Amino acid sequence: MPPPKPLDHESVNENVKKVAYAVRGELYLRASELQKEGKKIIFTNVGNPHALGQKPLTFPRQVVALCQAPFLLDDPNVGLVFPADAIGRAKHYLSLTSGGLGAYSDSRGLPGIRKEVADFIERRDGYPSNPDLIFLTDGASKGVMQILNTIIRNEKDGILVPVPQYPLYSAAISLYGGSLVPYYLEEEANWGLDVNNLRHSVAQARSKGITVRAMVIINPGNPTGQCLSEANLRDLLKFCFQENLALLADEVYQQNIYQDERPFISARKLLLDMGSPLSREVQLVSFHTVSKGYWGECGQRGGYFEMTNLPPEKGSSCMDMTKQGPLERGSHQVSGNKTVDEIYKVASVSLSPNVPGQIFLGLMVNPPKPGDISYLKFTAESKGILDSLRRRARIMTDGFNSCRNVVCNFTEGAMYSFPQIRLPPKAVEAAKRAGKVPDVFYCLKLLEATGISTVPGSGFGQKEGVFHLRTTILPAEEDMPAIMASFKKFNDEFMEQYEDYRGYSRM
Amino acid sequence: MPPPKPLDHESVNENVKKVAYAVRGELYLRASELQKEGKKIIFTNVGNPHALGQKPLTFPRQVVALCQAPFLLDDPNVGLVFPADAIGRAKHYLSLTSGGLGAYSDSRGLPGIRKEVADFIERRDGYPSNPDLIFLTDGASKGVMQILNTIIRNEKDGILVPVPQYPLYSAAISLYGGSLVPYYLEEEANWGLDVNNLRHSVAQARSKGITVRAMVIINPGNPTGQCLSEANLRDLLKFCFQENLALLADEVYQQNIYQDERPFISARKLLLDMGSPLSREVQLVSFHTVSKGYWGECGQRGGYFEMTNLPPEKGSSCMDMTKQGPLERGSHQVSGNKTVDEIYKVASVSLSPNVPGQIFLGLMVNPPKPGDISYLKFTAESKGILDSLRRRARIMTDGFNSCRNVVCNFTEGAMYSFPQIRLPPKAVEAAKRAGKVPDVFYCLKLLEATGISTVPGSGFGQKEGVFHLRTTILPAEEDMPAIMASFKKFNDEFMEQYEDYRGYSRM
Repeated sequence: MPPPKPLDHESVNENVKKVAYAVRGELYLRASELQKEGKKIIFTNVGNPHALGQKPLTFPRQVVALCQAPFLLDDPNVGLVFPADAIGRAKHYLSLTSGGLGAYSDSRGLPGIRKEVADFIERRDGYPSNPDLIFLTDGASKGVMQILNTIIRNEKDGILVPVPQYPLYSAAISLYGGSLVPYYLEEEANWGLDVNNLRHSVAQARSKGITVRAMVIINPGNPTGQCLSEANLRDLLKFCFQENLALLADEVYQQNIYQDERPFISARKLLLDMGSPLSREVQLVSFHTVSKGYWGECGQRGGYFEMTNLPPEKGSSCMDMTKQGPLERGSHQVSGNKTVDEIYKVASVSLSPNVPGQIFLGLMVNPPKPGDISYLKFTAESKGILDSLRRRARIMTDGFNSCRNVVCNFTEGAMYSFPQIRLPPKAVEAAKRAGKVPDVFYCLKLLEATGISTVPGSGFGQKEGVFHLRTTILPAEEDMPAIMASFKKFNDEFMEQYEDYRGYSRM
Repeated sequence: MPPPKPLDHESVNENVKKVAYAVRGELYLRASELQKEGKKIIFTNVGNPHALGQKPLTFPRQVVALCQAPFLLDDPNVGLVFPADAIGRAKHYLSLTSGGLGAYSDSRGLPGIRKEVADFIERRDGYPSNPDLIFLTDGASKGVMQILNTIIRNEKDGILVPVPQYPLYSAAISLYGGSLVPYYLEEEANWGLDVNNLRHSVAQARSKGITVRAMVIINPGNPTGQCLSEANLRDLLKFCFQENLALLADEVYQQNIYQDERPFISARKLLLDMGSPLSREVQLVSFHTVSKGYWGECGQRGGYFEMTNLPPEKGSSCMDMTKQGPLERGSHQVSGNKTVDEIYKVASVSLSPNVPGQIFLGLMVNPPKPGDISYLKFTAESKGILDSLRRRARIMTDGFNSCRNVVCNFTEGAMYSFPQIRLPPKAVEAAKRAGKVPDVFYCLKLLEATGISTVPGSGFGQKEGVFHLRTTILPAEEDMPAIMASFKKFNDEFMEQYEDYRGYSRM
């Protein structure tokens, strides 16, 4: 036998092999195959609104199109196809670059757009934000990966991750060789968080020699769709303070709220509201993106992260997080904080995030204002999408709850529904015989029967013996009744087939 | 003392701290400071053509602008500002997506564009290329990082990297915890490669317990600007075969050739020319981008890598690299090769490369053809840029060679000049007293005196006691004589100041 070659499978980095990413896993691959064979597939596996027919918002696309074609700005006919405020904004963004969209920006993103993000955060939270602690990224996922790569040193470093979770976190923790420390969300409490679970998880990790160093929250939740309550957020911030954990707040769905009782509250606002010592001590990284929200500009890959409580080191001029002042700049210190400088350095290795995505981000945090030519159209388009998402969240939850052996919390936010599927023991046995995890078995049958491409709950984690699936609420509203009818027909027949007098796998 | 917090500098992943990236290092930061203070800076530290005034090519920008604003395609006035072939191409690219630029694509990139890349490679090399072995990326750097992350398992895995090298390689190897194994390029042989150096490097690494698993070549060279000769390429391919190394061929400058004697030859073409067993055995990953070439669309972040000799595993249908056939598809095997599937899986974690960058890549590999409306304009713009780069390469080389104690190989390709600066011993002593590496000392003084922002040779690696700097050849052609005069004035005065009767640091 010749020795394996460097790119043969047995030679590959074990951490790469350990990565699991169900959102584009077996179900997605099978769906792609069926599509190639001519079957109509409804891709609800990824939150990808435009792929399901959502139209882009006009104004930001006009601005970015003009930035791509700056020669149009001098064209006498430009006013025939673009409104004046889009032309003005394109000139504004081009003035922030040196060389337009074709030039690498600073590796943290264009300073002018980081300033727009800081202003947005200040308006949202009521506290100033420092642009030097904001990094623009090729989508939020890349930012999450960079921060985890910064934190994780080896397999003894643990990261608290909610279960169910979005598998970006488990995948990145595997890739960087750390340990995922799960904490369970309470399905019965509307996917809320119980600090006792957190304590239990940390204690269990410690007993295995793992140092828990950071905690992830996803708010609004993915795949679970809940909005964390203010009480929950307070508890977990205190917990992070007590346990010396950095908090990674995945807030990419902050625009997607489908009820009025529980509005989105940023972890940062609440942390700063809570006052000293927490407001000065808890290290927080918050993530946002143009992919989610109601913009859904996934393919543009624009995101940011903002760091809180990474102040200048001793010896630098002191920076008060509640004031925005100039930062000390040494020969290698651009932010005054050595960790921020390390993150900047690593970002520099791939030179810069894509510049068009940065401009989308600028537009998202600084949309048309009352009085602007495009304001009414922009507002109408925005309202149309958000209102429809709110109705779809309701149609889907109600649809699932009308099905045999299916129970589903209401989608308060984000863009997913995560119904529990109470699989009868016979179905679990049939799955075992087929060599499949039970929820994978169910989702594959659903796919073959209806073309609905979902992600099995096992891809996100769930309690032992409990089964779910995740679907986005993104199919076109007019298609929704037919999709839910098709799901109900499949599900109820499936249950009919596998149910017997012994009852369900779990009551 | 309270314990360090998770994001305090002492807590950060050591591999992150070890990363060094000189292209945006001390010199760049100092230049940015001086710019803020009002000094005119000529940024020649990064190959970033548009930042130095190069205009984007019109046709690709028109196409991407239309893709961003698909509502324009139905506008009766669109023909007043866009030519018909740009409109046609925009419709073509939109037809390849499901949801336009706002939708995530497949994580490998849009299949239709991967097919355009495969066709380009076939035209270039004379051998078919398989789109399933082509992955689109957010620029070539991200692709290089992903491949290195796949190969490197621990610090005993070595990667052969040329010295001088582009610091992406050293940075990524540090980040992923591997070992950089340097091999020296021969400045006296026009920065060619000597297989004896390679053997020596591998033997030295082995003596330290390091297994060398891959070799990097940069052709045309960065920072060195040479085109590898066919003989050199043959030698190194044989070497990779003998030593069981994967070859990583950084060919991002393949369009940038400034002489006719030594055209660019892709590693893949030569490998397949060499016939069995090499053509079936040597694993090769080749990188390309829209950032370099004469397009210079750095900010768009579009790149690809193509893998050669990662065939279907036993049990899959056999794939002959010289034919393009359908690949076996198992439930988790989409390419028929498990390593390719692992790379696909990891790419999936960040969902997809940015879609506008993918379209730029499609346009680069499939530019306007004779007879197209935009052909003449596109060709004239292209020729204008390439001819000017050729002249600038000459002006810069001649300029450096006219300076005291400076010798410089001609820039045969890429976009850099890498003159050797023979620093007098007194200058080396002065640098030591200032606590600076000698070439950093020189480059800082150059920056302060002239505003020319270069990168010291030590950022790329160089032989002990030999000093260089890297500059791009990208400043506007009309500014070039003044820049070189300013450099010469600084250099010759510097040498005057530090030279004495004892001679130079190196003859």
